[in-house]
Amino acid sequence: MSVMPVAQPNPFRIFDTIQGYQRAFALKAAIDLDLFTAIARGNHTAAEIAKACKASERGVRMLSDAMVVLGFLTKAGNQYSLTADTAFFLDREAPAYLGHAFSFLMHPVQLSGFQDLTESVRRGGTIERNGTLAPEDPIWLEFARGMAPLMMPAAEAIAGILQAELASKSTAKILDIAASHGLFGLTVAQKLPKAHIYALDWANVLQVAKENAQRQGMSERYHLLSGSAFDVDYGSGFDAVLLTNFLHHFEPAENEKLLKKAHAALNPGGQVIILEFVPNEDRVSPPVPALFSLSMLTNTPHGDAYTLAEYREMCRNAGFEGPKQIPLDPMPQSLLVARKSF
Amino acid sequence: MSVMPVAQPNPFRIFDTIQGYQRAFALKAAIDLDLFTAIARGNHTAAEIAKACKASERGVRMLSDAMVVLGFLTKAGNQYSLTADTAFFLDREAPAYLGHAFSFLMHPVQLSGFQDLTESVRRGGTIERNGTLAPEDPIWLEFARGMAPLMMPAAEAIAGILQAELASKSTAKILDIAASHGLFGLTVAQKLPKAHIYALDWANVLQVAKENAQRQGMSERYHLLSGSAFDVDYGSGFDAVLLTNFLHHFEPAENEKLLKKAHAALNPGGQVIILEFVPNEDRVSPPVPALFSLSMLTNTPHGDAYTLAEYREMCRNAGFEGPKQIPLDPMPQSLLVARKSF
Repeated sequence: MSVMPVAQPNPFRIFDTIQGYQRAFALKAAIDLDLFTAIARGNHTAAEIAKACKASERGVRMLSDAMVVLGFLTKAGNQYSLTADTAFFLDREAPAYLGHAFSFLMHPVQLSGFQDLTESVRRGGTIERNGTLAPEDPIWLEFARGMAPLMMPAAEAIAGILQAELASKSTAKILDIAASHGLFGLTVAQKLPKAHIYALDWANVLQVAKENAQRQGMSERYHLLSGSAFDVDYGSGFDAVLLTNFLHHFEPAENEKLLKKAHAALNPGGQVIILEFVPNEDRVSPPVPALFSLSMLTNTPHGDAYTLAEYREMCRNAGFEGPKQIPLDPMPQSLLVARKSF
Repeated sequence: MSVMPVAQPNPFRIFDTIQGYQRAFALKAAIDLDLFTAIARGNHTAAEIAKACKASERGVRMLSDAMVVLGFLTKAGNQYSLTADTAFFLDREAPAYLGHAFSFLMHPVQLSGFQDLTESVRRGGTIERNGTLAPEDPIWLEFARGMAPLMMPAAEAIAGILQAELASKSTAKILDIAASHGLFGLTVAQKLPKAHIYALDWANVLQVAKENAQRQGMSERYHLLSGSAFDVDYGSGFDAVLLTNFLHHFEPAENEKLLKKAHAALNPGGQVIILEFVPNEDRVSPPVPALFSLSMLTNTPHGDAYTLAEYREMCRNAGFEGPKQIPLDPMPQSLLVARKSF
């Protein structure tokens, strides 16, 4: 005989969720103050770290303790040290430093969007007329400057697909829509030394891509198309069109317009490669792609995190075969690869 | 022979922490819209819930999916249902409804404090002159109106201690400092039918306590002392002094002043009962008391989450024996009970 334990009502999840905003701002404060970089440079007590960060010892002690609670630091006696992941990603001098991504991920526009989420749910979309979709919205400069390191695994995967497809060709022509930092097209250009990249984005954002192309010595093979992806003439003869982090901003009918333009610009047999948050058909898993729909609710009039079935319908209505979904584990995004018939 | 798996650097914890602000505002939006109450009343599809919440079906579908991801709802097909904890705590008609606590826990002042955390760390305290400690600061009305349900377990524990101590006495006199909603003193008054409660708080806040005392038919035994706990004359002859959710706002020297005033007002053998977030001596565990120090950093000039050793020193410097710590698991706070010598 055993007595089944009866679960008591527990409000822990409620308070843990509420406290999430405090944890987010605590980590942002540590990034803003370069706390992790100070520790990487050999400062371990609150007094040493405070001096390096030009902050109060009391505040640094409290923030450092919070970073231990959240798993970003360890503490032995009064000495703070970096975890392996923190040293890898949050020391400003580390190659994989992710601190610049905070400027986009915790941009005031994103924060105020979520502060206004109640009203966005009432209306069914952003409470700003166009959300973050206005021409040359400066938030996309923050994206271009901060988010490239996060996109490395996806860029490598895209370049791998196109290398397998196009390496035997004497030349190749790639259209990179919403090019942003330029990483996707430039990674392809590195793998395919004869490929020409056509980068499309708002003129202000293209400056970032252009500088990155110059830095990599790619300027001669890097061409700029500035303006709205809905309006700009793409040209023709492309072997591939990249649509990265873009289609989630729009409603399906608008995406079909874009996909039809991409289809028309491609050579027969050409591919469209889409990088997206793709939740399962239940729309509640995996967590990160599923929750992404709220960002689209607050930031856009009609955007969403679309399922594979929804992307399949958009692609087919635009004339493509596919798409095939390629997960990018452990990254939360997927590639969707569709092809124009030969 | 086995091959040890090598841990790969993983940025999951960083993005999960950043996303915390989105989860907090998503839950707040569900509370604002009374989403859980709508489901409790038998609305299960996004269309039904949207109609009950006077919101868009699209927004409600996205928010409800997010609530499933966060563990507050379940989903089967297109039907959403409450979890047991959600039905217990987040249905507005449930006796243990916690939704009113959001008005304090996510008050604009709390949010802006954390948005300014970087500067608070630099300075070592709130960037507002007195933070939330200004006379009659309206945030304490939100605390008084919203936080009482959360304080029930602590109130019951305090009343139990005083019942064991004072039930045999023909009368008793209890000073409830920072009385707020009045719950602590009123719960004691229910257990000790001859006790008189002296409730001290800002005049605006005392209106909430007074109304609660009237509602419970306790007005004749409920006395109001309005003003600052540092300035008001407490009187004398008290059997117990309650200091709930209060000492964390001040520096130790100020707390010793308050404790000396409490000591002087107590009868010999009387007790001071302190309700507090008390982290372990390492200051990084348990998580909730440890993280509470950041709220004091942003909201006050000198407050903190003090350890037991620190409270012991303050109590002893004020003339008390003790204190003894009484955890209130699963609640994250503790009682500290110290005694004036006979």
